[in-house]
Amino acid sequence: MSTNQLDKKSEAWSALFSEPMSELVKRYTASVFFDKRLWLADITGSLAHAEMLAAQNIIAASDLADIQRGMAQIRAEIEAGSFEWKLDLEDVHLNIEARLTQLVGDAGKRLHTGRSRNDQVATDVRLWLRDEIDLISDLLKELQVALVDVAEQNVDVILPGFTHLQVAQPVSFAHHLLAYVEMFARDAERMADVRRRTNRLPLGSAALAGTTYPLDRERVAKTLGMEGVCQNSLDGVSDRDFAIEFTAAASLCMVHISRFSEELILWMSQNFGFVKIADRFTTGSSIMPQKKNPDVPELARGKTGRVVGHLMGLITLMKGQPLAYNKDNQEDKEPLFDTVDTLKDTLRIFCEMVGGQLNSATGKKEGGITVNAVAMEAAANKGYATATDLADYLVKKGLPFRDAHETVAHAVKAATSHNCDLSELPLTVLQGFNASIEKDVYECLSLRGSLNARNTLGGTAPAQVKAQIARHRARFA
Amino acid sequence: MSTNQLDKKSEAWSALFSEPMSELVKRYTASVFFDKRLWLADITGSLAHAEMLAAQNIIAASDLADIQRGMAQIRAEIEAGSFEWKLDLEDVHLNIEARLTQLVGDAGKRLHTGRSRNDQVATDVRLWLRDEIDLISDLLKELQVALVDVAEQNVDVILPGFTHLQVAQPVSFAHHLLAYVEMFARDAERMADVRRRTNRLPLGSAALAGTTYPLDRERVAKTLGMEGVCQNSLDGVSDRDFAIEFTAAASLCMVHISRFSEELILWMSQNFGFVKIADRFTTGSSIMPQKKNPDVPELARGKTGRVVGHLMGLITLMKGQPLAYNKDNQEDKEPLFDTVDTLKDTLRIFCEMVGGQLNSATGKKEGGITVNAVAMEAAANKGYATATDLADYLVKKGLPFRDAHETVAHAVKAATSHNCDLSELPLTVLQGFNASIEKDVYECLSLRGSLNARNTLGGTAPAQVKAQIARHRARFA
Amino acid sequence: MSTNQLDKKSEAWSALFSEPMSELVKRYTASVFFDKRLWLADITGSLAHAEMLAAQNIIAASDLADIQRGMAQIRAEIEAGSFEWKLDLEDVHLNIEARLTQLVGDAGKRLHTGRSRNDQVATDVRLWLRDEIDLISDLLKELQVALVDVAEQNVDVILPGFTHLQVAQPVSFAHHLLAYVEMFARDAERMADVRRRTNRLPLGSAALAGTTYPLDRERVAKTLGMEGVCQNSLDGVSDRDFAIEFTAAASLCMVHISRFSEELILWMSQNFGFVKIADRFTTGSSIMPQKKNPDVPELARGKTGRVVGHLMGLITLMKGQPLAYNKDNQEDKEPLFDTVDTLKDTLRIFCEMVGGQLNSATGKKEGGITVNAVAMEAAANKGYATATDLADYLVKKGLPFRDAHETVAHAVKAATSHNCDLSELPLTVLQGFNASIEKDVYECLSLRGSLNARNTLGGTAPAQVKAQIARHRARFA
Amino acid sequence: MSTNQLDKKSEAWSALFSEPMSELVKRYTASVFFDKRLWLADITGSLAHAEMLAAQNIIAASDLADIQRGMAQIRAEIEAGSFEWKLDLEDVHLNIEARLTQLVGDAGKRLHTGRSRNDQVATDVRLWLRDEIDLISDLLKELQVALVDVAEQNVDVILPGFTHLQVAQPVSFAHHLLAYVEMFARDAERMADVRRRTNRLPLGSAALAGTTYPLDRERVAKTLGMEGVCQNSLDGVSDRDFAIEFTAAASLCMVHISRFSEELILWMSQNFGFVKIADRFTTGSSIMPQKKNPDVPELARGKTGRVVGHLMGLITLMKGQPLAYNKDNQEDKEPLFDTVDTLKDTLRIFCEMVGGQLNSATGKKEGGITVNAVAMEAAANKGYATATDLADYLVKKGLPFRDAHETVAHAVKAATSHNCDLSELPLTVLQGFNASIEKDVYECLSLRGSLNARNTLGGTAPAQVKAQIARHRARFA
Repeated sequence: MSTNQLDKKSEAWSALFSEPMSELVKRYTASVFFDKRLWLADITGSLAHAEMLAAQNIIAASDLADIQRGMAQIRAEIEAGSFEWKLDLEDVHLNIEARLTQLVGDAGKRLHTGRSRNDQVATDVRLWLRDEIDLISDLLKELQVALVDVAEQNVDVILPGFTHLQVAQPVSFAHHLLAYVEMFARDAERMADVRRRTNRLPLGSAALAGTTYPLDRERVAKTLGMEGVCQNSLDGVSDRDFAIEFTAAASLCMVHISRFSEELILWMSQNFGFVKIADRFTTGSSIMPQKKNPDVPELARGKTGRVVGHLMGLITLMKGQPLAYNKDNQEDKEPLFDTVDTLKDTLRIFCEMVGGQLNSATGKKEGGITVNAVAMEAAANKGYATATDLADYLVKKGLPFRDAHETVAHAVKAATSHNCDLSELPLTVLQGFNASIEKDVYECLSLRGSLNARNTLGGTAPAQVKAQIARHRARFA
Repeated sequence: MSTNQLDKKSEAWSALFSEPMSELVKRYTASVFFDKRLWLADITGSLAHAEMLAAQNIIAASDLADIQRGMAQIRAEIEAGSFEWKLDLEDVHLNIEARLTQLVGDAGKRLHTGRSRNDQVATDVRLWLRDEIDLISDLLKELQVALVDVAEQNVDVILPGFTHLQVAQPVSFAHHLLAYVEMFARDAERMADVRRRTNRLPLGSAALAGTTYPLDRERVAKTLGMEGVCQNSLDGVSDRDFAIEFTAAASLCMVHISRFSEELILWMSQNFGFVKIADRFTTGSSIMPQKKNPDVPELARGKTGRVVGHLMGLITLMKGQPLAYNKDNQEDKEPLFDTVDTLKDTLRIFCEMVGGQLNSATGKKEGGITVNAVAMEAAANKGYATATDLADYLVKKGLPFRDAHETVAHAVKAATSHNCDLSELPLTVLQGFNASIEKDVYECLSLRGSLNARNTLGGTAPAQVKAQIARHRARFA
Repeated sequence: MSTNQLDKKSEAWSALFSEPMSELVKRYTASVFFDKRLWLADITGSLAHAEMLAAQNIIAASDLADIQRGMAQIRAEIEAGSFEWKLDLEDVHLNIEARLTQLVGDAGKRLHTGRSRNDQVATDVRLWLRDEIDLISDLLKELQVALVDVAEQNVDVILPGFTHLQVAQPVSFAHHLLAYVEMFARDAERMADVRRRTNRLPLGSAALAGTTYPLDRERVAKTLGMEGVCQNSLDGVSDRDFAIEFTAAASLCMVHISRFSEELILWMSQNFGFVKIADRFTTGSSIMPQKKNPDVPELARGKTGRVVGHLMGLITLMKGQPLAYNKDNQEDKEPLFDTVDTLKDTLRIFCEMVGGQLNSATGKKEGGITVNAVAMEAAANKGYATATDLADYLVKKGLPFRDAHETVAHAVKAATSHNCDLSELPLTVLQGFNASIEKDVYECLSLRGSLNARNTLGGTAPAQVKAQIARHRARFA
Repeated sequence: MSTNQLDKKSEAWSALFSEPMSELVKRYTASVFFDKRLWLADITGSLAHAEMLAAQNIIAASDLADIQRGMAQIRAEIEAGSFEWKLDLEDVHLNIEARLTQLVGDAGKRLHTGRSRNDQVATDVRLWLRDEIDLISDLLKELQVALVDVAEQNVDVILPGFTHLQVAQPVSFAHHLLAYVEMFARDAERMADVRRRTNRLPLGSAALAGTTYPLDRERVAKTLGMEGVCQNSLDGVSDRDFAIEFTAAASLCMVHISRFSEELILWMSQNFGFVKIADRFTTGSSIMPQKKNPDVPELARGKTGRVVGHLMGLITLMKGQPLAYNKDNQEDKEPLFDTVDTLKDTLRIFCEMVGGQLNSATGKKEGGITVNAVAMEAAANKGYATATDLADYLVKKGLPFRDAHETVAHAVKAATSHNCDLSELPLTVLQGFNASIEKDVYECLSLRGSLNARNTLGGTAPAQVKAQIARHRARFA
């Protein structure tokens, strides 16, 4: 059995190199401490490659058997935590290959036939990311379910709908939550789109130009459950679109989380008092004994910056690189990994914070968001939220909308000077603004009347909200 | 006929306001100077809305006729350049509506029934962007065609394939160009995905909560060729995902353009001399009389930063906004418009720079990129580009790949010290490295032999490249 | 007199070019439509250059006189709006030089001796930016003055100080405003630092390598009021640090504006009602007649994204560029110009929105921010804002801080269950938590007692706040 | 001795909390795994605080002695690696304080008197960053020295100066390196500016409003070597300008590194062959035995994206946050830490890669960059690099510059068609373009003649370059 060149890698790359890599450089260029999380994808990809090499008679059946046996042992060692990761071996790929050769000899050295680290690493990252996208998609669905659950219990709860953070019109709290369901549903759509473009096989691109061995790339793609094969080897090894596209989709999802967090933080402030989240999602203060702070939504809002920063970093990384593979690309991994971790943790925690935990005794979820319907409705009564309804009332009496709008402005001015709501102005006063106003105006001036009246597709009327909940339930099923 | 409140807008928003907007604020908040480009989308959207209002008996048939007549005249005025845009009227929407009311009176005031500027502007931007996406998709196809055309003429031209900008392996110049075709094809996929999410109708969301009028939103969506209706009114007016998603897709496309530009700039440098672009895409120097500079690729590379900056600006804009509409959102337009302009201009210019212009006399394209095949092949002979082929040769003789790799390193070292290529080493010398080497080794040490050998799917062998060209042609048809 | 080559520039750059620039490319590469705002800097720089050329006997005194006469006329033409800007002449520099040559003949052609557009444009941008920085510094001071003015009138107004948007401790509203004074003071410091690095002279770097003419660069620097000369010609033409550094400083300033805006928007929301801004800084709604929206702070918050986007664009632009000048650099101007415009407009508008306008009759400012002290104090009474004071009280009685903190948590729990404030708990109840509590505890449990007690440097006690106001006044003087 | 509340922190924040923090939330919100690197700053800051508390008689002298003794032991434990970091204790501050209380009892509980974690963490980060800035400043100087050393040995080496990557004019290789010295010198200036604004003391701001204890903040600032005290408590706890400003300065420095890297990568490409870096900074390929890749410059170029991403993340983080402290701010640390690490590692490695390592036997540095002067000069002969010199020659004969420029373009055209350099055109041919040309023209057409002629301040003439080297040496001394 020949010697194992990989063991000597710490001394020199090949006979061409007159001195070993410096320790400083080794640490600067090594990736094993972060890319070892790709180990399972690396083994899976290698096994599919080896299986095809054997099927194509490029390696012997016995080589394949050796490789499979060796990989099984490596997998066991890694899972048991007994695998020794070496900085000297630079990355996850060489660590695993070196151990394989140690375990099974020449067959291990044959595994790299017809491939290069360039296409190997691209394949590993894609395999890994595809599976993470699936986990994220599940979490996105779980969060939508949690929001719909809470919505269903709050269809008739009235919240002041804001534009410009000024009271605008009353809305159902359920309707408000369902706006976020729309956002997370779009995030899931985007994840599905990214998955399609991620789940393509670069393996077989070799270093950059393809390979001289008669590989069957379609077979490998099929074994790995991939939807297709990268059709150009130069593109195969240099493409990082999928990483950028994923991070862009993750950034948008975090923007939605940050908007929801902003609202939770506002709603929990003493001046709103609309909701509470369970104590286990809050923290106290080291100095102020009365504090109960919404740390989780704040941190989630903050982590949006983190993910957006990764997106910016990845784009800057790729900008202006000539083909094909350049070492710059190694910098794709940490931002990608951290984006996945941040997004998964955040979604997981929001699922529970919104929807609560399952109480196995009752079969019900407990400890989700607590709604203060009284405070919400009180706030909705503050800012002439039904002024538009009065304008609409006048339009139905024949006024052009623009004239009705102006008339109501005068009514609001009067109510302000009397320090009362529009619904508290006497009929005679209202009629002073427009003679056609009749007693039935008070129905449209009530919060609930206003709510019920917005009964078109996508509107806030309870009937519409219930229809949407049903649509979502059907979608989840 | 009642007075036109919009005319007084410069004085006061409504009776509620005690003073007119300051001139400074008017300029700071006005958008008409940039959003007037939405005029056609605004008119189209308004006509679809009005037609539905009439169908639902919310306005009279005569109102609809008035609105249609007025809008036809406004359209004619804008196209003729005689429409007077007023800063006092803040935006494109109020400018058009005010003129409509001037022209047709009360019917004009009825147009805004059941809608708000919040859903109106969201609708306009979506309609406009959808059509721009279609233009961009056409340009992406045109650029792919130009690249395939040039590729087809250069299948047998050998370029040194680089990794780390070091000579790696010989590749077909056509193969290299087709890598960009893959990238632009992915860009087109992404544009199609964004289009789907852009082409949904927010109109009917009104200010934020839906409306009290019995709108038929599905009908409006159908009239406007939209694929669906935004299902939640709060989301309808506050969602800007489509703008961010489009700008992310545009950023990726510009990253591809920047990579291609980087290569063109390198290739045109005297030390490469691989290609020329036509003089009309270059500029000279005010001081150095000999200069002919690749301004267009450089500027395109630079404009990548511009588009990426817009992406970051848009994300920062939306981060942490509470629902529903906030004025911050007005800042979505300029970055979006500039992204569209930059991308379209860049693609258009690259189409011609790469593929040339149609000579109507000959029916052929002329003046595209000029290839210096001799310089390319000479460069491919510099860096032991066929070393991998020698390793593969040894593997086929039975050596494990890792051992073959090490053997070749020694051969390269020897060739370097003799200052010659591997193919110039005598057979006896080569056999000194491994006894199994025979005379047929020289075939695999030639550039062309190396090229032909990479004959698997996605590889650079001319046969594979031709197959890819055929696949693309079929795709374009 | 020889012909004017610049007139022919639209046809061909020089004899070397076989075809004129295409119209599309001309538009793509031209900068005159945005860089013409540099005209005054361009003339100023050219005059200083010409004056030095004459002093060094590189051009004749009569040439200088011709150039000065020609430039005076050009300046007059531009100021009168009669100067004809030509796209064909690409940029501000060639437009002015071509016109100069038209006016004064050969002397105009001699002006470009010893310089290149590369160092000329770098000089112009620096001169222009330096003057803009001075304007911005003035505005930053004006805004600080406005804040200190409002602070001075509100030293004794109590605001609930928030951490995590939860009531924390009472603070003086003046103290809160002075936090922003600190931020804008730091912004001014940064602007001064950037100014130093901007105000250095690249002129004399020529294309990239210096020039063969015996220029006196120090003299030109002195004429232009610059602090030094760029010491390396390659760096002189390629450096854009000053643009990035300025945009970074501007981004930080906009972040401060965005934080202040966020607070203004919150404070104006009906659930807070702490402040009002004058009607002329707000807008209404096209549909909701009761609305008065804080458009200006919202837009300013949104424009933060715009400036941050420019910063990212500029960094992306410069990343990875080889020396010396590349055309990419032309893309530095639009983001820089827009950053300056956005920052100046925003600061200007905030100065007036916060501090009001001078009423020339009374000599006083009117129409600034209106403070609702009653609402602020009521809100400060909501969240046990003096709990820390009780803990401090107990520490002074001998308890270790951590024990006192825990004791107060129990007291807050009791107050919550009684639905009252800590100050409303009877002494006996309080003594139940710790026997050492005496009657004087109620003083420290009052908002005003709490405020007064924070009487160390930088604290919120009125005495400290007044001292800070005095410090700022001295600083402004 | 009372119980240690901190030990119970895992169960509940205070009596107010009805349930302990969930494990998921604990992990999401904890910072101890990254902020423990602040331990020395935390101890240093605490000791300064305690010493002042004793001096002000807020705690007893015996308490101070206890705290000092405890902290000495904790320091020893951490340095020995025996300190047990607990996730349950959330962050570095509580870990240290809890251990202190364990070791010294009530004195430990008294340490937190008059401060909060909000001002404590701000102080720690500033102390830590200040010291890191000092290390970075040293490295920036070291890198400048290395560049000047290499420059000194290459004053007479001629490199083709590029603009637009087209040969422009010959420059001294030393001159080119000195351009980077200018950049890193500006980086050092910026670091000094950031240091000034970082080195201010927030301690004493307490939670947000200052404290009721008679602290002597100036004393603490002096003890800690800080230049001043944050003058406003709200600003003290919420300000993260210094982190953003540092990251912006680091981004600019990395942009310079990326530009230098881009050039190294180009220069090492076979088509240039201008320089070599030592083997220990390069890597080979797993598939191509001949490869020696410039991994370090590529990775450094890639890491620019990483740092820029952190800048973007930090700005996004702070945008729109209301005062005072919000949990979002915890997200400032990881990007800041990673920026410091990346910048330090990169600078350290570039110092050695450029300048080599000290050989202690010879007292000389070895193994830095290797220059191929022959290849550089050969490349400078390719692109009519002295065309500008011919134009200048004609100007000195009396032609206006613009006319000379055009004349030379014709000469270049002729030389191109003869496939020779300008200096190879016979005198009679040159005279055909302008009759005033004489024999002495050939001096200015030589590379060295051109170089020597650019002898003004900042120019590339060897005399100027030597003067600059002397200036830098004086600056370093």
